[in-house]
Amino acid sequence: MTNISRLRGFIQDMTRLAGENPAEERWLEEGAALLRGLVSHDDWLPAALAEPGPSYRQYLLHCDPLERFSVVSFVWGIGQRTPVHNHKVWGLVGMLRGSEVSVTMHPEPGGPMRTGEVDHLKPGEVVGVGSGEEDIHWVENAVADKPSISIHVYGGNIGAIERHTFNPETSARKRFVSGYTNAEVPNLWDRSAEMA
Amino acid sequence: MTNISRLRGFIQDMTRLAGENPAEERWLEEGAALLRGLVSHDDWLPAALAEPGPSYRQYLLHCDPLERFSVVSFVWGIGQRTPVHNHKVWGLVGMLRGSEVSVTMHPEPGGPMRTGEVDHLKPGEVVGVGSGEEDIHWVENAVADKPSISIHVYGGNIGAIERHTFNPETSARKRFVSGYTNAEVPNLWDRSAEMA
Ligand SMILES: [Fe+3]
Ligand SMILES: [Fe+3]
Ligand SMILES: [Mg+2]
Repeated sequence: MTNISRLRGFIQDMTRLAGENPAEERWLEEGAALLRGLVSHDDWLPAALAEPGPSYRQYLLHCDPLERFSVVSFVWGIGQRTPVHNHKVWGLVGMLRGSEVSVTMHPEPGGPMRTGEVDHLKPGEVVGVGSGEEDIHWVENAVADKPSISIHVYGGNIGAIERHTFNPETSARKRFVSGYTNAEVPNLWDRSAEMA
Repeated sequence: MTNISRLRGFIQDMTRLAGENPAEERWLEEGAALLRGLVSHDDWLPAALAEPGPSYRQYLLHCDPLERFSVVSFVWGIGQRTPVHNHKVWGLVGMLRGSEVSVTMHPEPGGPMRTGEVDHLKPGEVVGVGSGEEDIHWVENAVADKPSISIHVYGGNIGAIERHTFNPETSARKRFVSGYTNAEVPNLWDRSAEMA
Protein backbone atom coordinates (compact mmCIF):
# COMPACT_ATOMS: atom_id res chain seq x y z
CA MET A 1 0.00 0.00 0.00
CA THR A 2 1.62 3.26 -1.10
CA ASN A 3 1.06 6.56 0.64
CA ILE A 4 -0.27 8.15 -2.52
CA SER A 5 -1.61 11.13 -0.57
CA ARG A 6 1.94 12.56 -0.50
CA LEU A 7 1.94 12.78 -4.30
CA ARG A 8 -1.62 14.15 -4.31
CA GLY A 9 -0.67 16.84 -1.78
CA PHE A 10 2.45 17.78 -3.78
CA ILE A 11 0.41 18.16 -6.97
CA GLN A 12 -2.19 20.26 -5.20
CA ASP A 13 0.51 22.54 -3.75
CA MET A 14 2.17 22.88 -7.17
CA THR A 15 -1.21 23.62 -8.78
CA ARG A 16 -1.88 26.37 -6.22
CA LEU A 17 1.58 27.80 -6.99
CA ALA A 18 0.80 27.68 -10.75
CA GLY A 19 -2.40 29.62 -10.04
CA GLU A 20 -0.27 32.54 -8.83
CA ASN A 21 1.46 32.71 -12.21
CA PRO A 22 4.91 32.79 -10.59
CA ALA A 23 8.12 33.96 -12.24
CA GLU A 24 10.62 31.20 -12.97
CA GLU A 25 12.70 32.04 -9.87
CA ARG A 26 9.68 31.38 -7.66
CA TRP A 27 9.06 28.04 -9.38
CA LEU A 28 12.70 27.09 -8.81
CA GLU A 29 12.66 28.17 -5.17
CA GLU A 30 9.19 27.22 -3.93
CA GLY A 31 8.88 24.24 -6.25
CA ALA A 32 12.24 22.93 -4.97
CA ALA A 33 11.04 23.21 -1.37
CA LEU A 34 7.87 21.26 -2.22
CA LEU A 35 9.86 18.62 -4.15
CA ARG A 36 12.28 18.31 -1.22
CA GLY A 37 9.27 17.46 0.96
CA LEU A 38 8.07 14.86 -1.55
CA VAL A 39 11.39 13.02 -1.95
CA SER A 40 12.15 13.09 1.79
CA HIS A 41 9.96 9.95 2.04
CA ASP A 42 10.15 6.90 -0.18
CA ASP A 43 6.79 5.29 0.56
CA TRP A 44 4.45 6.76 -2.03
CA LEU A 45 5.51 5.83 -5.58
CA PRO A 46 3.26 3.07 -7.02
CA ALA A 47 5.33 -0.03 -7.91
CA ALA A 48 4.25 0.09 -11.59
CA LEU A 49 5.88 3.52 -11.88
CA ALA A 50 9.13 2.37 -10.26
CA GLU A 51 9.68 -0.53 -12.65
CA PRO A 52 12.85 -0.49 -14.78
CA GLY A 53 12.64 -1.59 -18.44
CA PRO A 54 14.96 -2.35 -21.35
CA SER A 55 15.91 1.34 -21.44
CA TYR A 56 15.39 4.15 -18.89
CA ARG A 57 11.70 4.80 -18.14
CA GLN A 58 9.96 8.18 -18.01
CA TYR A 59 6.61 7.65 -16.32
CA LEU A 60 4.28 10.63 -16.26
CA LEU A 61 2.89 11.02 -12.74
CA HIS A 62 0.90 14.18 -13.44
CA CYS A 63 0.58 16.85 -16.09
CA ASP A 64 -1.06 20.14 -15.18
CA PRO A 65 -4.15 20.38 -17.45
CA LEU A 66 -2.99 23.80 -18.66
CA GLU A 67 0.49 22.29 -19.25
CA ARG A 68 2.18 24.75 -16.88
CA PHE A 69 4.17 21.92 -15.27
CA SER A 70 4.59 18.13 -15.34
CA VAL A 71 5.87 15.55 -12.84
CA VAL A 72 7.77 12.51 -14.10
CA SER A 73 9.33 9.45 -12.46
CA PHE A 74 12.65 8.60 -14.16
CA VAL A 75 13.74 5.02 -13.54
CA TRP A 76 17.31 4.05 -14.41
CA GLY A 77 17.98 0.34 -14.69
CA ILE A 78 21.50 -0.98 -14.16
CA GLY A 79 23.91 0.69 -16.61
CA GLN A 80 21.20 2.84 -18.25
CA ARG A 81 21.64 6.44 -19.36
CA THR A 82 19.91 9.10 -21.44
CA PRO A 83 21.19 10.48 -24.71
CA VAL A 84 22.75 13.96 -24.53
CA HIS A 85 19.69 16.29 -24.54
CA ASN A 86 18.31 19.73 -23.70
CA HIS A 87 14.99 20.78 -22.11
CA LYS A 88 13.86 24.30 -23.16
CA VAL A 89 12.00 24.84 -19.85
CA TRP A 90 12.99 25.07 -16.17
CA GLY A 91 13.49 21.78 -14.39
CA LEU A 92 13.77 20.37 -10.88
CA VAL A 93 15.22 16.95 -10.06
CA GLY A 94 14.68 15.25 -6.70
CA MET A 95 16.48 11.99 -5.94
CA LEU A 96 14.09 9.42 -4.51
CA ARG A 97 16.00 6.13 -4.52
CA GLY A 98 19.60 5.19 -5.37
CA SER A 99 21.77 7.80 -7.04
CA GLU A 100 22.28 9.39 -10.46
CA VAL A 101 25.05 11.32 -12.13
CA SER A 102 24.44 14.22 -14.51
CA VAL A 103 27.19 15.33 -16.91
CA THR A 104 26.88 18.77 -18.56
CA MET A 105 28.01 18.86 -22.20
CA HIS A 106 28.92 21.88 -24.36
CA PRO A 107 28.52 21.73 -28.14
CA GLU A 108 31.61 22.75 -30.17
CA PRO A 109 30.45 23.57 -33.71
CA GLY A 110 31.76 20.89 -36.08
CA GLY A 111 33.61 18.91 -33.40
CA PRO A 112 33.15 16.68 -30.36
CA MET A 113 31.22 18.11 -27.39
CA ARG A 114 33.20 19.36 -24.39
CA THR A 115 32.45 17.71 -21.04
CA GLY A 116 31.49 20.13 -18.25
CA GLU A 117 30.27 19.73 -14.69
CA VAL A 118 29.73 16.26 -13.21
CA ASP A 119 27.05 16.20 -10.54
CA HIS A 120 26.09 13.31 -8.24
CA LEU A 121 22.69 13.27 -6.60
CA LYS A 122 21.92 11.43 -3.35
CA PRO A 123 18.47 10.46 -1.98
CA GLY A 124 16.54 13.49 -0.71
CA GLU A 125 18.64 15.97 -2.73
CA VAL A 126 16.98 18.42 -5.11
CA VAL A 127 18.63 20.46 -7.88
CA GLY A 128 17.10 23.01 -10.24
CA VAL A 129 18.02 24.34 -13.69
CA GLY A 130 16.61 27.54 -15.19
CA SER A 131 15.34 27.67 -18.77
CA GLY A 132 17.97 30.26 -19.66
CA GLU A 133 20.90 28.24 -18.32
CA GLU A 134 23.10 25.95 -20.39
CA ASP A 135 21.22 22.73 -19.75
CA ILE A 136 22.60 20.19 -22.20
CA HIS A 137 23.52 17.02 -20.33
CA TRP A 138 23.24 13.29 -20.07
CA VAL A 139 22.19 11.40 -16.96
CA GLU A 140 22.93 7.87 -15.83
CA ASN A 141 22.38 5.47 -12.98
CA ALA A 142 25.25 5.98 -10.50
CA VAL A 143 24.52 2.73 -8.66
CA ALA A 144 26.19 -0.36 -10.14
CA ASP A 145 23.81 -3.08 -8.99
CA LYS A 146 20.31 -1.57 -8.50
CA PRO A 147 17.81 0.69 -10.26
CA SER A 148 17.77 4.37 -9.28
CA ILE A 149 14.73 6.68 -9.35
CA SER A 150 14.48 10.47 -9.51
CA ILE A 151 11.37 12.65 -9.62
CA HIS A 152 11.52 15.44 -12.19
CA VAL A 153 9.34 18.53 -12.43
CA TYR A 154 9.43 20.70 -15.57
CA GLY A 155 7.95 24.05 -16.55
CA GLY A 156 5.70 22.56 -19.22
CA ASN A 157 4.44 19.23 -20.58
CA ILE A 158 7.97 17.86 -20.99
CA GLY A 159 6.88 14.81 -23.03
CA ALA A 160 5.38 17.11 -25.68
CA ILE A 161 8.06 19.78 -25.96
CA GLU A 162 10.04 19.93 -29.18
CA ARG A 163 13.67 19.81 -28.04
CA HIS A 164 16.94 18.17 -29.10
CA THR A 165 19.34 15.31 -28.61
CA PHE A 166 23.01 15.82 -29.45
CA ASN A 167 25.68 13.60 -30.94
CA PRO A 168 28.66 13.88 -28.54
CA GLU A 169 31.14 13.09 -31.37
CA THR A 170 29.99 15.85 -33.73
CA SER A 171 27.87 18.27 -31.61
CA ALA A 172 25.13 17.76 -34.24
CA ARG A 173 21.62 18.14 -32.87
CA LYS A 174 18.45 16.24 -33.76
CA ARG A 175 14.75 17.09 -33.15
CA PHE A 176 13.39 15.16 -30.15
CA VAL A 177 9.88 14.81 -28.62
CA SER A 178 10.27 12.37 -25.74
CA GLY A 179 6.67 11.33 -25.03
CA TYR A 180 6.11 9.17 -21.96
CA THR A 181 6.53 5.47 -21.21
CA ASN A 182 3.06 5.04 -19.69
CA ALA A 183 -0.38 5.22 -21.34
CA GLU A 184 -2.07 5.52 -17.92
CA VAL A 185 -1.30 7.71 -14.93
CA PRO A 186 -2.18 6.85 -11.32
CA ASN A 187 -5.69 7.74 -10.12
CA LEU A 188 -4.79 9.96 -7.14
CA TRP A 189 -8.37 10.92 -6.41
CA ASP A 190 -10.02 7.81 -5.00
CA ARG A 191 -10.10 8.69 -1.31
CA SER A 192 -12.82 6.11 -0.54
CA ALA A 193 -10.51 3.69 1.31
CA GLU A 194 -9.20 6.52 3.53
CA MET A 195 -12.79 7.67 4.19
CA ALA A 196 -14.31 4.23 4.88
CA MET B 1 -6.82 4.59 -32.09
CA THR B 2 -9.03 6.94 -30.09
CA ASN B 3 -9.18 10.66 -30.68
CA ILE B 4 -8.09 11.40 -27.12
CA SER B 5 -7.43 15.05 -28.01
CA ARG B 6 -11.20 15.70 -27.72
CA LEU B 7 -11.12 14.70 -24.05
CA ARG B 8 -7.90 16.66 -23.49
CA GLY B 9 -9.46 19.78 -25.06
CA PHE B 10 -12.63 19.40 -22.97
CA ILE B 11 -10.61 19.14 -19.77
CA GLN B 12 -8.52 22.17 -20.70
CA ASP B 13 -11.67 24.21 -21.42
CA MET B 14 -13.25 23.11 -18.13
CA THR B 15 -10.02 23.94 -16.26
CA ARG B 16 -10.00 27.45 -17.78
CA LEU B 17 -13.64 27.84 -16.71
CA ALA B 18 -12.74 26.68 -13.17
CA GLY B 19 -10.01 29.34 -13.09
CA GLU B 20 -12.70 32.01 -13.40
CA ASN B 21 -14.32 30.75 -10.20
CA PRO B 22 -17.77 30.67 -11.83
CA ALA B 23 -21.09 30.60 -10.00
CA GLU B 24 -22.98 27.32 -10.27
CA GLU B 25 -25.28 28.66 -13.00
CA ARG B 26 -22.26 29.32 -15.23
CA TRP B 27 -20.93 25.82 -14.63
CA LEU B 28 -24.33 24.41 -15.59
CA GLU B 29 -24.63 26.57 -18.69
CA GLU B 30 -21.08 26.78 -20.06
CA GLY B 31 -20.12 23.33 -18.78
CA ALA B 32 -23.19 21.87 -20.53
CA ALA B 33 -22.18 23.52 -23.82
CA LEU B 34 -18.67 22.05 -23.52
CA LEU B 35 -20.03 18.60 -22.60
CA ARG B 36 -22.44 18.76 -25.57
CA GLY B 37 -19.39 19.26 -27.78
CA LEU B 38 -17.62 16.28 -26.22
CA VAL B 39 -20.50 13.80 -26.53
CA SER B 40 -21.38 14.91 -30.07
CA HIS B 41 -18.63 12.51 -31.23
CA ASP B 42 -18.13 8.93 -30.10
CA ASP B 43 -14.54 8.34 -31.21
CA TRP B 44 -12.44 9.33 -28.20
CA LEU B 45 -13.20 7.14 -25.18
CA PRO B 46 -10.40 4.56 -24.61
CA ALA B 47 -11.79 1.00 -24.82
CA ALA B 48 -10.64 0.15 -21.28
CA LEU B 49 -12.90 2.92 -19.94
CA ALA B 50 -15.91 1.74 -21.96
CA GLU B 51 -15.81 -1.84 -20.64
CA PRO B 52 -18.85 -3.10 -18.71
CA GLY B 53 -18.33 -5.24 -15.59
CA PRO B 54 -20.36 -7.33 -13.16
CA SER B 55 -22.01 -4.11 -11.92
CA TYR B 56 -22.13 -0.60 -13.43
CA ARG B 57 -18.67 0.98 -13.80
CA GLN B 58 -17.64 4.50 -12.81
CA TYR B 59 -14.30 5.20 -14.46
CA LEU B 60 -12.60 8.44 -13.50
CA LEU B 61 -11.42 10.20 -16.66
CA HIS B 62 -10.08 13.30 -14.92
CA CYS B 63 -10.21 14.98 -11.56
CA ASP B 64 -9.28 18.64 -11.31
CA PRO B 65 -6.22 18.77 -8.97
CA LEU B 66 -8.01 21.33 -6.79
CA GLU B 67 -11.09 19.04 -6.82
CA ARG B 68 -13.32 21.74 -8.33
CA PHE B 69 -14.76 19.22 -10.83
CA SER B 70 -14.41 15.63 -11.97
CA VAL B 71 -15.25 13.79 -15.20
CA VAL B 72 -16.47 10.18 -15.06
CA SER B 73 -17.44 7.56 -17.64
CA PHE B 74 -20.47 5.58 -16.41
CA VAL B 75 -20.86 2.24 -18.16
CA TRP B 76 -24.14 0.36 -17.77
CA GLY B 77 -24.06 -3.31 -18.68
CA ILE B 78 -27.27 -5.05 -19.74
CA GLY B 79 -29.88 -4.75 -16.96
CA GLN B 80 -27.59 -2.75 -14.66
CA ARG B 81 -28.69 0.16 -12.46
CA THR B 82 -27.43 2.30 -9.60
CA PRO B 83 -28.86 2.27 -6.09
CA VAL B 84 -31.07 5.26 -5.21
CA HIS B 85 -28.55 8.00 -4.35
CA ASN B 86 -27.90 11.74 -4.01
CA HIS B 87 -24.88 13.86 -5.09
CA LYS B 88 -24.46 17.02 -2.94
CA VAL B 89 -22.84 18.95 -5.83
CA TRP B 90 -24.00 20.15 -9.26
CA GLY B 91 -23.88 17.55 -12.02
CA LEU B 92 -23.98 17.31 -15.80
CA VAL B 93 -24.76 14.12 -17.71
CA GLY B 94 -24.02 13.71 -21.43
CA MET B 95 -25.16 10.58 -23.23
CA LEU B 96 -22.35 9.12 -25.34
CA ARG B 97 -23.56 5.68 -26.45
CA GLY B 98 -26.88 3.84 -26.04
CA SER B 99 -29.47 5.29 -23.70
CA GLU B 100 -30.17 5.58 -19.99
CA VAL B 101 -33.22 6.32 -17.89
CA SER B 102 -33.11 8.36 -14.67
CA VAL B 103 -35.95 8.09 -12.14
CA THR B 104 -36.26 10.79 -9.48
CA MET B 105 -37.27 9.50 -6.03
CA HIS B 106 -38.69 11.44 -3.07
CA PRO B 107 -38.16 10.17 0.49
CA GLU B 108 -41.32 9.87 2.63
CA PRO B 109 -40.20 9.71 6.28
CA GLY B 110 -40.88 6.24 7.66
CA GLY B 111 -42.40 4.88 4.42
CA PRO B 112 -41.61 3.88 0.83
CA MET B 113 -40.10 6.52 -1.45
CA ARG B 114 -42.38 8.24 -3.96
CA THR B 115 -41.45 7.93 -7.66
CA GLY B 116 -41.05 11.27 -9.49
CA GLU B 117 -39.92 12.25 -12.96
CA VAL B 118 -38.75 9.61 -15.43
CA ASP B 119 -36.21 10.93 -17.94
CA HIS B 120 -34.75 9.17 -20.97
CA LEU B 121 -31.45 10.33 -22.40
CA LYS B 122 -30.44 9.82 -26.05
CA PRO B 123 -26.92 10.04 -27.55
CA GLY B 124 -25.68 13.63 -27.71
CA GLU B 125 -28.18 14.88 -25.09
CA VAL B 126 -26.94 16.70 -21.99
CA VAL B 127 -28.88 17.38 -18.78
CA GLY B 128 -27.80 19.30 -15.68
CA VAL B 129 -28.85 19.26 -12.02
CA GLY B 130 -28.04 22.02 -9.53
CA SER B 131 -26.71 21.26 -6.06
CA GLY B 132 -29.78 22.85 -4.47
CA GLU B 133 -32.29 20.84 -6.48
CA GLU B 134 -33.92 17.60 -5.33
CA ASP B 135 -31.46 15.21 -6.89
CA ILE B 136 -32.23 11.79 -5.43
CA HIS B 137 -32.57 9.27 -8.23
CA TRP B 138 -31.57 5.96 -9.67
CA VAL B 139 -30.28 5.40 -13.19
CA GLU B 140 -30.35 2.33 -15.40
CA ASN B 141 -29.44 1.13 -18.85
CA ALA B 142 -32.42 1.83 -21.11
CA VAL B 143 -31.12 -0.46 -23.87
CA ALA B 144 -32.10 -4.12 -23.51
CA ASP B 145 -29.29 -5.81 -25.38
CA LYS B 146 -26.17 -3.56 -25.27
CA PRO B 147 -24.10 -1.54 -22.79
CA SER B 148 -24.81 2.20 -22.54
CA ILE B 149 -22.28 4.91 -21.63
CA SER B 150 -22.78 8.43 -20.28
CA ILE B 151 -20.16 11.02 -19.38
CA HIS B 152 -20.77 12.77 -16.05
CA VAL B 153 -19.25 15.98 -14.76
CA TYR B 154 -19.65 16.98 -11.12
CA GLY B 155 -18.85 20.07 -9.08
CA GLY B 156 -16.27 18.27 -6.93
CA ASN B 157 -14.32 15.02 -6.66
CA ILE B 158 -17.50 12.91 -6.83
CA GLY B 159 -15.76 9.66 -5.82
CA ALA B 160 -14.63 11.24 -2.54
CA ILE B 161 -17.80 13.10 -1.51
CA GLU B 162 -19.65 11.81 1.50
CA ARG B 163 -23.23 11.34 0.28
CA HIS B 164 -26.08 8.83 0.65
CA THR B 165 -27.87 5.87 -0.81
CA PHE B 166 -31.54 5.37 0.04
CA ASN B 167 -33.66 2.30 0.66
CA PRO B 168 -36.70 2.74 -1.63
CA GLU B 169 -38.91 0.62 0.72
CA THR B 170 -38.26 2.65 3.88
CA SER B 171 -36.70 5.97 2.69
CA ALA B 172 -33.85 5.21 5.12
CA ARG B 173 -30.53 6.69 4.04
CA LYS B 174 -27.01 5.28 4.41
CA ARG B 175 -23.59 6.98 4.21
CA PHE B 176 -21.95 6.43 0.80
CA VAL B 177 -18.51 7.27 -0.64
CA SER B 178 -18.51 5.86 -4.16
CA GLY B 179 -14.80 5.83 -5.04
CA TYR B 180 -13.93 4.92 -8.61
CA THR B 181 -13.64 1.64 -10.52
CA ASN B 182 -10.19 2.41 -11.97
CA ALA B 183 -6.81 2.74 -10.24
CA GLU B 184 -5.31 4.44 -13.32
CA VAL B 185 -6.60 7.26 -15.48
CA PRO B 186 -5.69 7.79 -19.15
CA ASN B 187 -2.46 9.69 -19.90
CA LEU B 188 -3.89 12.52 -22.03
CA TRP B 189 -0.58 14.34 -22.31
CA ASP B 190 1.60 12.23 -24.57
CA ARG B 191 1.38 14.24 -27.79
CA SER B 192 4.53 12.64 -29.26
CA ALA B 193 2.67 10.53 -31.86
CA GLU B 194 0.76 13.61 -33.11
CA MET B 195 4.02 15.57 -33.24
CA ALA B 196 6.15 12.91 -34.95
FE1 LIG C 1 17.54 16.10 -18.55
FE1 LIG D 1 -26.58 10.17 -10.04
MG1 LIG E 1 -35.25 13.12 -22.33
